[in-house]
Amino acid sequence: MFYLTIDILGTIAFAISGVLVAMEKKLDIFGVFIIAFVTAIGGGTLRDILIGNTPVVWMRDYTYILVVLGAVIFAVFFVNQLKYLRKTLFLFDTIGIGLFTMVGVEKGISADLAPIMCIALGTITACFGGVIRDILCNEIPVIFRKEVYATACILGAVSYFIFQYLPIITEYAYVGAILVTITFRLLAVKFKIALPNIYRP
Amino acid sequence: MFYLTIDILGTIAFAISGVLVAMEKKLDIFGVFIIAFVTAIGGGTLRDILIGNTPVVWMRDYTYILVVLGAVIFAVFFVNQLKYLRKTLFLFDTIGIGLFTMVGVEKGISADLAPIMCIALGTITACFGGVIRDILCNEIPVIFRKEVYATACILGAVSYFIFQYLPIITEYAYVGAILVTITFRLLAVKFKIALPNIYRP
Amino acid sequence: MFYLTIDILGTIAFAISGVLVAMEKKLDIFGVFIIAFVTAIGGGTLRDILIGNTPVVWMRDYTYILVVLGAVIFAVFFVNQLKYLRKTLFLFDTIGIGLFTMVGVEKGISADLAPIMCIALGTITACFGGVIRDILCNEIPVIFRKEVYATACILGAVSYFIFQYLPIITEYAYVGAILVTITFRLLAVKFKIALPNIYRP
Repeated sequence: MFYLTIDILGTIAFAISGVLVAMEKKLDIFGVFIIAFVTAIGGGTLRDILIGNTPVVWMRDYTYILVVLGAVIFAVFFVNQLKYLRKTLFLFDTIGIGLFTMVGVEKGISADLAPIMCIALGTITACFGGVIRDILCNEIPVIFRKEVYATACILGAVSYFIFQYLPIITEYAYVGAILVTITFRLLAVKFKIALPNIYRP
Repeated sequence: MFYLTIDILGTIAFAISGVLVAMEKKLDIFGVFIIAFVTAIGGGTLRDILIGNTPVVWMRDYTYILVVLGAVIFAVFFVNQLKYLRKTLFLFDTIGIGLFTMVGVEKGISADLAPIMCIALGTITACFGGVIRDILCNEIPVIFRKEVYATACILGAVSYFIFQYLPIITEYAYVGAILVTITFRLLAVKFKIALPNIYRP
Repeated sequence: MFYLTIDILGTIAFAISGVLVAMEKKLDIFGVFIIAFVTAIGGGTLRDILIGNTPVVWMRDYTYILVVLGAVIFAVFFVNQLKYLRKTLFLFDTIGIGLFTMVGVEKGISADLAPIMCIALGTITACFGGVIRDILCNEIPVIFRKEVYATACILGAVSYFIFQYLPIITEYAYVGAILVTITFRLLAVKFKIALPNIYRP
């Protein structure tokens, strides 16, 4: 129940972030819905396709499509009010990537994949919805340019495997890993941490 | 036999529309073929990947690859004459989306998916070839901006499930749904119907 | 052992070519790694998804992810020296497409697909990593515009099926097909062979 709530809040935050990008591009209502949907479930869809877990998750469960539909209708009607919700949305989004990362890691473990592949799947689940959104909107994905978004996911996923060596139960390791992702993301945004610049001036 | 003919005519129309877009972008003959192929079978391919129906359809049946090859050769040689065929091509294209939508819906039903997922699969089958074409050509997909294309597919697919409640045989519901898509598309183009504008001036 | 070595050299060359494109676009280190990875394994991934061979190949074998990681670290540190390796990289790259093509053809044969589909899979394996790289970098894929890259792959794959009719063992046909791809590519670059122009002046 707790996980489901967070999952839905994350999906809503991702969908709304998609709506905002799509409206900036002046897409029509169908385009806005597709971009919102892809932002929210694109990462999980790519993960399911890569491991052969088909039909992909949103095809087997109504919830996602309905949640995104609700979020789009809300966002389109209250687009002017969304700026007041900026901080709330950022929080949802951050909680969302924490949870989405661990959902991806867990799917990798269920498929008997090596830890490094589970970490990759977690990162894909949390980050590639945004990548597909940016490609559909004809932009170089923002995550490849200036976000520490992916670093937070990787650190969270890695910490889960490290926590396995501690004498704690799996549920704690799971929640701990989510907190690592969330904490790192919040700190990175607060202190403007970015990946080291590899280009010489 | 009847369905097969329509399927091939739809594939030809989609492939030719791909050739025209690719030639505008000055692609070479390999690029033109790939864009034509992707336009014609990209939607069905994405559908098959999402439901895990692999190898995807064009890998199991020669017809598609040969039809697209024929259409490309024809279009490249007769590109100057194609403008006289504009109306014919538009008709093929419209019939094509009507049929492609129902092919997608039926695949969803065969995979035991819920009606809303079947409707999504029908729309993906008919529309996402064009989306992938536009991404490969570095454009924001036209369907997200100003087309009622997708709306016609959704209406046709929805009507199929409504027709199920009527005391008619499945074949009639199937053909009826195709006619709904075609009719709506023709009317939308004739009367310039577009989705309501969600942007304030 | 011999094949494995070539496979790794090809992966390295593809990864480095990805690094160079990504650095031109000023991506951050995460973006550079993803582009390098996608360039090196994107073609094989798409092939595996199309035939339903999941989890896709790099998920079942550590080698690829580690080789790409090593290549990225090397390329980022020695980017200024890479220009002296230009010819070596081009040779790796050319050997890489020769081998990748035949890997794809063989996967198609294992999946009982028709020769034309095996040829398509070989070409996809060798060429579509670059296509996905270009899409992620917001460019029209270079291969659709001016490369004879794909033609070399198609010729190599076709020659494999022709060699089957000769009284030689399969291994020779396999190596012969790789040599056809490599030779054609080298000649095409040396003599600036391009596909015929289909546009009237």
